[in-house]
Amino acid sequence: MKNIGYYNGKTGPIEEMTIPMNDRVVYFGDGVYDATYAVNHVIFALEDHIDRFFRSFSKLKIPFAMSKEELAKTLQDLVNQVDNSESLMVYWQTTRGTGMRNHVFPDGPANLFVTIRPNPLTAIDRTLKLITVEDTRFLHCDIKTLNLIPSVMAAQAAKEAGCQEAVFHRGEIVTECAHSNVSIIKSGVFCTAPLNNLILPGTARKHLVALAAQVGMQVSEKPFTVAELMDADEVIVHSSGTLCNAAVEIDGKRVGGRAPELLKKLQDAAVKQFEDYTKVKFADYAK
Amino acid sequence: MKNIGYYNGKTGPIEEMTIPMNDRVVYFGDGVYDATYAVNHVIFALEDHIDRFFRSFSKLKIPFAMSKEELAKTLQDLVNQVDNSESLMVYWQTTRGTGMRNHVFPDGPANLFVTIRPNPLTAIDRTLKLITVEDTRFLHCDIKTLNLIPSVMAAQAAKEAGCQEAVFHRGEIVTECAHSNVSIIKSGVFCTAPLNNLILPGTARKHLVALAAQVGMQVSEKPFTVAELMDADEVIVHSSGTLCNAAVEIDGKRVGGRAPELLKKLQDAAVKQFEDYTKVKFADYAK
Repeated sequence: MKNIGYYNGKTGPIEEMTIPMNDRVVYFGDGVYDATYAVNHVIFALEDHIDRFFRSFSKLKIPFAMSKEELAKTLQDLVNQVDNSESLMVYWQTTRGTGMRNHVFPDGPANLFVTIRPNPLTAIDRTLKLITVEDTRFLHCDIKTLNLIPSVMAAQAAKEAGCQEAVFHRGEIVTECAHSNVSIIKSGVFCTAPLNNLILPGTARKHLVALAAQVGMQVSEKPFTVAELMDADEVIVHSSGTLCNAAVEIDGKRVGGRAPELLKKLQDAAVKQFEDYTKVKFADYAK
Repeated sequence: MKNIGYYNGKTGPIEEMTIPMNDRVVYFGDGVYDATYAVNHVIFALEDHIDRFFRSFSKLKIPFAMSKEELAKTLQDLVNQVDNSESLMVYWQTTRGTGMRNHVFPDGPANLFVTIRPNPLTAIDRTLKLITVEDTRFLHCDIKTLNLIPSVMAAQAAKEAGCQEAVFHRGEIVTECAHSNVSIIKSGVFCTAPLNNLILPGTARKHLVALAAQVGMQVSEKPFTVAELMDADEVIVHSSGTLCNAAVEIDGKRVGGRAPELLKKLQDAAVKQFEDYTKVKFADYAK
């Protein structure tokens, strides 16, 4: 198959699949998700993503009933049914059951929703242009919820500005991007926002923090400002599909480009980690 | 029919209706809604709700294509198909189209989703118990979006505390409830939070502001604090289904009850407005 959609055990092409009108995602966005990529039918860093998924639904008290092993097996079975000539986005979410609209929790079980579909990884040498956007999101950004309107609006604003991502900031403090994290290199230090309720604990972020230390860089997990972002030696955007990409322009001003060797070390390490895990050449699946 | 669901022209019992897996509500909660009540097949204050719905989707640039008149006619046609022995909740939402998951806007048209179902109005003399909850929502609460997880969590916390609603506050400042607005009477003045990005512009709020002036009360639309809420002469919760109900307990402490005549004047005025509009006796549809 070219792609596959799954909903509580039923499968079919994503474009033909439906969900009940009364799934609580429809009224409240009442669910959480996670996503990663598969190449050659290997799902990259699946255990990291499943761990985060479990943290997300636990924080919202969603009664997801599968074990981590059952979920991993379900995702792998679905991935195995899709053509593997391209990289696949492996996306899954759980919502707080189905029932007539009512804010309070329903009695029934949680729903599981999965899509597996071709989606290219970002070539490691592709550079990005960003805009900055005031961060007006809620104070639960550590939970990977389906309440994503501010990210939708910011991503669209970036696109309309000819850019690929938007950097959120709360006042002077940089938080993260609309659908990525953002870090900087300054004076040889890999600086990334601390883990708190203002940012998603990105898996690429987690990997880069470890890889930076591995290649001999100091790591700082302290808040940095928009001014520090603009004045960084390198600006790095990272997510599951964009492992470690340099931003070269923010709000029309040139940024970064002053620590290309450290950037390259991190990129090589991120690509190597992906390749060691998946046993494929990253460049063959990235655009 | 006992209830009816509608999705882009298709209708059926709500429990049997489905929507596409790729409706953007599923991935992003990317839509807005509005709701009111119908009795005897008359939809109360429909023009107010349709006006607000148009403001909501316009703020999010959702390309909803029907005119106000077409939408009103569609809702009325659906209401007419449902048994009218009970009050009906008339709920409708539009989402930003359907397509493979991508934060940026899709090309296609917006979706229209409607449910009409029995739901009782709140008897005007019913009193409520509340809890207070720190308001951690996003800064777009003036838009009636489908990003409602914090309201879900607060409503559930209220229920678990044996209460009917939760009052949000940002620090000391009271904003609104999880699915209602909240106002107070203090020294003969009807005090309600100002219209800004922190609260929904409630239709019941709009009506009460006008009715309070009509019955000779002063009106203050300035922020008030949790301390002022606890010390108010009356605490009033209001929404489309709960026209003007007194809260008598907050966080286990007795509140209000010190201006029963003013409260009664407001309640009588709200009920009269409903009855003048719908030509039915409010009490016959309220529980």
